[in-house]
Amino acid sequence: MGNNALIIMESPKQQYNSQTQETDTMAQNEDKVPTRVLPGFMELLPADQIVFNGMLDTIRGVYEQYGFAPIDTPVIERADVLLAKVGGETAKQIYRFTKGDNELALRFDLTVPLARYVAEHVNELALPFRRYHIGKVYRGESPQKGRYREFYQCDIDIIGNESLSLINDAEIPRVVYDVFTRLGIGSFVIRLNNRKLITGLLNSAGVGELAVEVMRTIDKIDKVGEEEVRQSLTSLGLTESAIQKIFNFLSIKGSVDEIIERLRLLGIEDATFQLGISELSEVIKCMRALGMPDSSFAVDLSIARGLDYYTGTVYETVLVDHPGVGSICSGGRFDNLAEKYTDRKLPGVGISIGLTRLFSQLKEVGIVKSGASTLAKVLIVPLVENSSVPLEIATMLRSQGLSVEVYWEESKMKKKMAYADKIGVPYVVLVGEDEISSGMFVVKNMATRQQTKVPKDQIFSEIS
Amino acid sequence: MGNNALIIMESPKQQYNSQTQETDTMAQNEDKVPTRVLPGFMELLPADQIVFNGMLDTIRGVYEQYGFAPIDTPVIERADVLLAKVGGETAKQIYRFTKGDNELALRFDLTVPLARYVAEHVNELALPFRRYHIGKVYRGESPQKGRYREFYQCDIDIIGNESLSLINDAEIPRVVYDVFTRLGIGSFVIRLNNRKLITGLLNSAGVGELAVEVMRTIDKIDKVGEEEVRQSLTSLGLTESAIQKIFNFLSIKGSVDEIIERLRLLGIEDATFQLGISELSEVIKCMRALGMPDSSFAVDLSIARGLDYYTGTVYETVLVDHPGVGSICSGGRFDNLAEKYTDRKLPGVGISIGLTRLFSQLKEVGIVKSGASTLAKVLIVPLVENSSVPLEIATMLRSQGLSVEVYWEESKMKKKMAYADKIGVPYVVLVGEDEISSGMFVVKNMATRQQTKVPKDQIFSEIS
Repeated sequence: MGNNALIIMESPKQQYNSQTQETDTMAQNEDKVPTRVLPGFMELLPADQIVFNGMLDTIRGVYEQYGFAPIDTPVIERADVLLAKVGGETAKQIYRFTKGDNELALRFDLTVPLARYVAEHVNELALPFRRYHIGKVYRGESPQKGRYREFYQCDIDIIGNESLSLINDAEIPRVVYDVFTRLGIGSFVIRLNNRKLITGLLNSAGVGELAVEVMRTIDKIDKVGEEEVRQSLTSLGLTESAIQKIFNFLSIKGSVDEIIERLRLLGIEDATFQLGISELSEVIKCMRALGMPDSSFAVDLSIARGLDYYTGTVYETVLVDHPGVGSICSGGRFDNLAEKYTDRKLPGVGISIGLTRLFSQLKEVGIVKSGASTLAKVLIVPLVENSSVPLEIATMLRSQGLSVEVYWEESKMKKKMAYADKIGVPYVVLVGEDEISSGMFVVKNMATRQQTKVPKDQIFSEIS
Repeated sequence: MGNNALIIMESPKQQYNSQTQETDTMAQNEDKVPTRVLPGFMELLPADQIVFNGMLDTIRGVYEQYGFAPIDTPVIERADVLLAKVGGETAKQIYRFTKGDNELALRFDLTVPLARYVAEHVNELALPFRRYHIGKVYRGESPQKGRYREFYQCDIDIIGNESLSLINDAEIPRVVYDVFTRLGIGSFVIRLNNRKLITGLLNSAGVGELAVEVMRTIDKIDKVGEEEVRQSLTSLGLTESAIQKIFNFLSIKGSVDEIIERLRLLGIEDATFQLGISELSEVIKCMRALGMPDSSFAVDLSIARGLDYYTGTVYETVLVDHPGVGSICSGGRFDNLAEKYTDRKLPGVGISIGLTRLFSQLKEVGIVKSGASTLAKVLIVPLVENSSVPLEIATMLRSQGLSVEVYWEESKMKKKMAYADKIGVPYVVLVGEDEISSGMFVVKNMATRQQTKVPKDQIFSEIS
């Protein structure tokens, strides 16, 4: 099925065009309701869905191995729950509606539902609470390449009671390391930073109150370039000397240990800055103790993660050979998850993988390819009218643990084999008069096209 | 956590009451946003979520073993797509809203999205198309016991091209049999009928044009009783003799073979009726050939499945010891899945399990119980400041395939063990000064409270 297996409406314009072109062929169906998916929604054919689900399973498996427990919250929340924790562009993207007297909204991430969940159930949960959550979220963005209105997020977070050990900040990237290693999508680097560094730097430059705006500006440096960031900082009211301090800081590059050494040499005495250095070096020490190779991570002082709520360690992950894909997994440490919902102080650390976008990008650059359209290991093809022997063989192979499909429709041999090829099943077992009378069944390997004849009780071992 | 682990808002009234009672304790939090889930939405604590997910996995595993391929469609559809295939009460329950110029709606089942999906992709799919779909659906019903506004459906369907072999009607209940056997929720019976029987009977009684209304009425016989059904049929305009014919038919009970024999003895010559008998007996023959024991199914002529679109075999499944739970899995055969969307004739057969309702009912009758709040097999409890040995042991056990959590927070031994008890982890490994210097680590079985001391490389075998 090749590339056609990925069906995405890239833009309303594109959709409009293709509908226009289809006017003629549609004429005969004008009483039919259009079946195309909405722009910005991904819908996959089985050949891709199976690959996608395999990635979800891999992510889930790693999350579970690190002792994260699953939660599943309603997709629909009270609008005020979501609006309490969001502003700006994202607030406009929320799908909102009314049902009865309720103002409702679809969740736009899994972090806000986590905050509500922990606040609601805090007395029943054991803290620290390690949870994973894999589910769909909704943002009514203008559809554009790689942007989806419905997409999967795969989140882990560790939520502490009043405090949370810094070692958790090292365990999170170790989980990320295992996820992307097992997904086998090529070399990647987990880039780390600590927001206390820039916060402390701005304090020491006397512009601490502008920290949030400055970090948002810096976060865009990869996209817009240094000159534009410089101008933006000037219009925020920063002095030339403060801006110079920021750029001196941002220009620090090198190995992890070199960067930490140079940060110390800056001689900035601000306590927050110094805490940033010690947190960053402690996290890196623990990541190494957890067995992460130095090639798998780097310190990047330009990462600020635009969101206000990060207060310490922040992460991004990039593919070494495909930097254009951008960050494939991001997150960080926050001091207080749920202050809108509870007086309890709940610090945490976590990351999120946006799998829908990642999948479509990996397909586009060729790292992920469509597979078979079936999970069946074997297709039984009856060539006789009496179904009892095919039924018996199917039941036998299933009880042996194989995924088995039977082609029950009446049609010519050629059509049956074309079906086997189209779904991409690895093996076919033929059940005809000869096979039944001789007790020897033809097992065809569909990749090699080789056929062997085996007795019924050896079909399983022939296939597996 | 016991029963508290299942958190469901049963009714708006109940919620209102409990909010009223909370007025005092809420006073200090009056600036906080309420975090309770909406009425009619299920939200589980991990101890139940893990059990729920285990059931989802079991269902998925069986579906995959029978060669069903996964699909995943958008939760949001164009409103006109959904409204094309629905009427009556369900249409009123649809969550509808506008975003930009689009009239949107949340899917209320997985059958309508399947119809749209198959119509849209029919040229790319191999037919027969065997798909499973597990996902959330939405119905804005008045919340009441056991009714949910957001719930999981777990569907399988086989969609043919113009025709579809009757053997599929036997494979579907075999899948259902495997699902409920593996779920281990007690004895169950799959009840079968064929809608051609009642359709043929009504034809022969000269009231074929009232078939849909009559079937809807009959479907309620378990709930409202025979007398009320009799009255409803009279007000539909049926003669006493036609009604008597229907009740003679409905009164046929007995073993599967007895019922088929008695249907034949009715001497109704209508071709549809006769086809119904032969389909029913063929399906049962194949179910037996597929290895289903006679105790696992029955013929029940009163099952009509209210929905218009069933045209042949229909199924319901009930728990023998808990008939009050109602049907836990229903479905049937339909002649034309997607006539609103395509001119292609696409017959099919399938079933749906509504897992959210089933789970809450199984919990209520005590068949399903809360488990541990963690998936971790072992919790490592460091008793030293230096984290390197605990980190090393955690990494070692994870690389051996175990799910491992480490308790990193600084607190007293008692609090650490209380955490282990609260999450219900099966094993704890203590890592203190003595353990590190002697190289012998304490492994505690939390169920038996027994402790053993083993060297590092034997921790894995001690636990598994």
